[in-house]
Amino acid sequence: MKTKSFKEKLNEQTAFIDGYLDKYLDEKDNPQNIIYKAMRYSIFAGGKRLRPILMMNVCKMCGGDVNEIIPFACAIEMIHTYSLIHDDLPAMDNDDLRRGMPTSHIKFGEATAILAGDALLNKAFEVVSDYRGDDVKRAVKAINMLAVSSGTEGMIGGQIVDMESEGREITLEELCYLHLNKTGAIIRSACTIGALIGGGSDAQVKAVDEFAKNLGVAFQIQDDILDIIGNEQELGKPIGSDLEEEKNTYVRLAGLEKSKELAYVYSENAKSALAIFGDKADFLIELTDYLTKRRS
Amino acid sequence: MKTKSFKEKLNEQTAFIDGYLDKYLDEKDNPQNIIYKAMRYSIFAGGKRLRPILMMNVCKMCGGDVNEIIPFACAIEMIHTYSLIHDDLPAMDNDDLRRGMPTSHIKFGEATAILAGDALLNKAFEVVSDYRGDDVKRAVKAINMLAVSSGTEGMIGGQIVDMESEGREITLEELCYLHLNKTGAIIRSACTIGALIGGGSDAQVKAVDEFAKNLGVAFQIQDDILDIIGNEQELGKPIGSDLEEEKNTYVRLAGLEKSKELAYVYSENAKSALAIFGDKADFLIELTDYLTKRRS
Repeated sequence: MKTKSFKEKLNEQTAFIDGYLDKYLDEKDNPQNIIYKAMRYSIFAGGKRLRPILMMNVCKMCGGDVNEIIPFACAIEMIHTYSLIHDDLPAMDNDDLRRGMPTSHIKFGEATAILAGDALLNKAFEVVSDYRGDDVKRAVKAINMLAVSSGTEGMIGGQIVDMESEGREITLEELCYLHLNKTGAIIRSACTIGALIGGGSDAQVKAVDEFAKNLGVAFQIQDDILDIIGNEQELGKPIGSDLEEEKNTYVRLAGLEKSKELAYVYSENAKSALAIFGDKADFLIELTDYLTKRRS
Repeated sequence: MKTKSFKEKLNEQTAFIDGYLDKYLDEKDNPQNIIYKAMRYSIFAGGKRLRPILMMNVCKMCGGDVNEIIPFACAIEMIHTYSLIHDDLPAMDNDDLRRGMPTSHIKFGEATAILAGDALLNKAFEVVSDYRGDDVKRAVKAINMLAVSSGTEGMIGGQIVDMESEGREITLEELCYLHLNKTGAIIRSACTIGALIGGGSDAQVKAVDEFAKNLGVAFQIQDDILDIIGNEQELGKPIGSDLEEEKNTYVRLAGLEKSKELAYVYSENAKSALAIFGDKADFLIELTDYLTKRRS
C-alpha cells in the first residue's frame, strides 16, 4: 500500500474539520435562518483550516486524543473567520473580495455581516463550553487561553495597533509586535491548546509555544511577500493592495530579499523547536515548509 | 438605625458592580490603550446594571454566595454593552446618541467601535473562564448558558429577526417571539445563571425562569411605552424615534392603553412566580415594580 503524501493527509484533515464545522453550524429552519447562511458562507469560503490543523496535530504529537480537541479546533476557526468578516467591513479594510469571493458585507449587507461576525465569535464559546469530557478543569483553562488569545491582549489588540499605525511608518520591531498579536496570538493558542488538551508535559508545551511563535512570524512574512509577488488569481485579491493602502508590511520595511531571508530563519527556528518530539513532529515540520513556501 | 430604602440598596449594588467592571477593564498602559478607552466609555455610559443586579439578587435569594457570581455578573453587562455598541452602528440603527451621550462610533470612529464591541464580547468569556472556584463543572454549565443566550438562538437571533422585520408589519405573536430572544434571552440567562450558581433547586430554577421570562416582556413593553410618552431629556434619545423608523413596537401593534395593560399583566405574573421564595423575594419584587413603572 502506498503511503499517503503530505498533501493527501492535509486534504483529509481539512475535510475532517469541515465535517464538524458543518455539524456545528447546522442551518436551522427558523426565523434566524439568514444568520446561519451568512456564518456558513464565510466559514466555507475556502479557508485552509491552518489553525485547527495545527491544533489537532500538536494534540496528536503530545499523545492526546484528537476527539477531545474537535470543539476547540472548530472554535478557533470560527474566531479566525469572524475576524476576517469584521476586518473586511467598509469601516475597516473595505475589501470587496476575499479568496476570490465577494466578502460577507457585499453578499449579505453590512448589518448582517456585523452580526455574522458577532455570531461566529459567540458560537466559538458556545461550542467549547458545551463540554462533555472528563477533565473539565483542563477544558476551562483551554477556554481561557482561547479567549485571551483572541481578545484585547491578543488578536484584537493587534488589530487595533495595526489600524492605529496605518499611514505612518513603523519600525520592524513594532511590526513584529503587531503581528505577534494580530495573527500570532491565535496561531500560538492553537498550538498550546493542542498541547494542553493533548496532555503535553511542561517542556513539551514550552517547545510547542516556541514552534508556534516562530511559525506565526514566518507565516506573516510569507503573506507579505505573496502580496507583492503572488499571482492575483491564486490569491483572490488584488496584488500590491497592502502597499497601495500604505500598510506596514515586512516587504515595505525590510525589502523583498531581506524578507525572504527572515521567513527562512523563522521557519527553521520553528522546526528546530520541535526536535524533542523526534519523528512524531514529521507532519508539523512538513506543514511548516509547506506554509512558508506556499504560493497562495 | 434607619433601614435602607429600595433606591439606596439599588445604588449600592450598582456601585458594587461598577467597582468590579472597573477592575476587569483596567486601562492598560500599552499600545492597545485606545481599545480599553472605548470599552470603558460605553461600559461607564450610565447603564442601570439591570442584568448583573438581577443575577446577584437571584443568586442571593437561592442562598448562594454573591462573590461566586461576580465574574458572570460583569460578563453579562459586557455582553449587553457590546450589543448596544454594534446596534448603534451606522449600518444597524445608526444612532448618534445613547443615554444622552455620543455613541461609540461617533466618539471613536466606526472601526474602533466595531472592535470595542468585539472586545467586550470576547472579554466576557475571558472573565468567566478565568475560574478560580471549586465547582468548575457548574461554572462551565453557566458559561454555556451565557453563550447560548447571547448567540444565534438567543440575543443575536432576536437582532437578526428584528432587522429582517423592519419596514413590514408583524403580528403581536411575532413581536413577542422577537423580544423573547432579542432582550429576553439575556434577562433570562442572568436570572437562571444566578439560580444555578446560587445552588437553587430544580423547582427554584424553574420559578426563577418563569419570573425572568415575564419580567423580560414587561420590561420591553415599558421600553416601547416610554419611547412614546417618555421625556426626551430623561431618556437621552429622540422621542418617537422607533415609530418614525417603522420599527415594530408593542405600542404600534397593540396601542398605548393595551400596551400598559400588558405591561401590568406580565409584571404581576413575574412577581407571582417568586411566591415560593417568600420574603426572600422582596427585593426582586420591588425591582420588578421599579422597572415596569420606570420613567426612563
